[in-house]
Amino acid sequence: MQRPDQPTLGVDLGGTKILAGVVSEDGAVLSSHRRETQADRGFNGVLNAVAEAVDACLQAHDAPRPDLLGIGVAGQVDDVTGTVRFAPNLDWHDEPLGTTLAERLGLDVVVVNDVRAASWGEWKHGAGRGVADLVVVFLGTGVGGGVVSGGALVEGCSNAAGELGHTMLVAGGRRCRCPNRGCLEAYVGGWAVAERAREAIAADPEAGAGLVERAGAADTVTGEHVTDGWRAGDPLATRIHEETVSYLAAGLVGIANAVNPCRIVLGGGVIESVPELVDAVRGALLDRPLAVVADALDVVRAALGSQAGVIGAASYARHRSDGTAGRDVRV
Amino acid sequence: MQRPDQPTLGVDLGGTKILAGVVSEDGAVLSSHRRETQADRGFNGVLNAVAEAVDACLQAHDAPRPDLLGIGVAGQVDDVTGTVRFAPNLDWHDEPLGTTLAERLGLDVVVVNDVRAASWGEWKHGAGRGVADLVVVFLGTGVGGGVVSGGALVEGCSNAAGELGHTMLVAGGRRCRCPNRGCLEAYVGGWAVAERAREAIAADPEAGAGLVERAGAADTVTGEHVTDGWRAGDPLATRIHEETVSYLAAGLVGIANAVNPCRIVLGGGVIESVPELVDAVRGALLDRPLAVVADALDVVRAALGSQAGVIGAASYARHRSDGTAGRDVRV
Repeated sequence: MQRPDQPTLGVDLGGTKILAGVVSEDGAVLSSHRRETQADRGFNGVLNAVAEAVDACLQAHDAPRPDLLGIGVAGQVDDVTGTVRFAPNLDWHDEPLGTTLAERLGLDVVVVNDVRAASWGEWKHGAGRGVADLVVVFLGTGVGGGVVSGGALVEGCSNAAGELGHTMLVAGGRRCRCPNRGCLEAYVGGWAVAERAREAIAADPEAGAGLVERAGAADTVTGEHVTDGWRAGDPLATRIHEETVSYLAAGLVGIANAVNPCRIVLGGGVIESVPELVDAVRGALLDRPLAVVADALDVVRAALGSQAGVIGAASYARHRSDGTAGRDVRV
Repeated sequence: MQRPDQPTLGVDLGGTKILAGVVSEDGAVLSSHRRETQADRGFNGVLNAVAEAVDACLQAHDAPRPDLLGIGVAGQVDDVTGTVRFAPNLDWHDEPLGTTLAERLGLDVVVVNDVRAASWGEWKHGAGRGVADLVVVFLGTGVGGGVVSGGALVEGCSNAAGELGHTMLVAGGRRCRCPNRGCLEAYVGGWAVAERAREAIAADPEAGAGLVERAGAADTVTGEHVTDGWRAGDPLATRIHEETVSYLAAGLVGIANAVNPCRIVLGGGVIESVPELVDAVRGALLDRPLAVVADALDVVRAALGSQAGVIGAASYARHRSDGTAGRDVRV
């Protein structure tokens, strides 16, 4: 049991970077540290890097010392044992992250999926505060999120709920990175926006000349080039951007009708760099759900930026360790 | 507080029929009565019919007498006050169903949306029994359902969650009866299957001759004619049927990825008359969600048939009146 005045450690472990922070009970980051993951050094190497990041945070932080750490990992997590079942970006299979880290650091450790941690962070300390029925969507290269219902996070039968990027957008449509076609992510994920742009350029090289010039070559066009082109008034980039707004709005309408949230929080790297998407999506969305759903709904921008994962992992760990959670996840 | 041995009354109030039943604690229907709604006689007339149906049930039932009634209504319900905000099939706006019925019958009354009641029934006493993370989908003229997460029904911000027929299937696609396009219901609802069939006949009258013969005319073709044609081996009816399976599977994959249920229960009039859909959809579905979602998932047929609403309304009322529910809904 954490004392109320005792901060908690939060770690956001991704395929390319590790963010660690000391987080107060009210979600403030008291000190933080960032380093490269270097996933190719394997489980023990990455664990060393996590431990170093945590040590760096603690050195920069005055007492009281935390004795609980939450770590969000980009992968499937067994939240009872703290084992990471599968983390493709780290090339991990069934790695006992929770127990190993707990032993190494002498802390209680709670392991959670990174997107779930960030969703939790936005709910408890960010743009979703005070709302019992919430949808959080993070748009980056991939698309993921979380659903809060009646004041509880929807976790799912195998702890995998929240894959909102793999809700349906166009049955039989674009191939996704998952086993299916037509997912929301296959239209609005960063990789998919780039793919749509390259296809549009191939279909009309003349219209695509501006984007090709930005990127150097047609096959190196990215979502960022589309954003830059849209800001500069490039017609093809504008069309692709507007289609992205429309796809995202359509997907969110369906999600809203299913779970009837009070609020949809939009975050992630794409929203950080194109915050205009929030107003555009709200405008495209709110007259399309069922009236009873639309009347209760707002769409807002995430508030915690790149710190959502660290704050969320710490806050989630505190929640799970306070004895009120359904499952015992301390290791 | 109901005594454990005391049964509960359940009423399923639809636009065309009223089903009432005395339901035991374990979900058995001890006596039941059915009559026409005759919605055109207005609120008081329908209320009389409900009261008569309840009286008929009670007369056929031995002691102990219930003192609690749950009523499921095809409309938007304020579950705190028991007011029906809007019920298009009954042409009701802001009718105080709960208080009026309670006074009239001398019973505690809990008012709930009819699809939610039926979802609750399948969860507590039907094909969803024992599962903490569940999706129930009812296919009829419309498509609706319910989501259970972590052992609690997802109710939503304005008590409207579960509109699974209005999740997205094809962005920008077929016009729905709701304010949106491309909803699941606009492809697999009974009205939509009929519409798709009529369009297919118009596009290829020769291929459609078999269906036209069944229906008497192209514009009277219904979903039932498609089913009959499919059973008889009619090629166009078979194509439409197979497309329905494919659409339904695609929509359910997206819903499964979002909320990660252990089980999807398929029920409603269409499933009652075409139970083969359950196996067909399961076969078309299970290799397409994310692996961690698919591994945890099964697709099964609803168990309570047309009694799901009565059993569910009674069981839900018992739940809401036992003091453990979050909101006080006794009127």
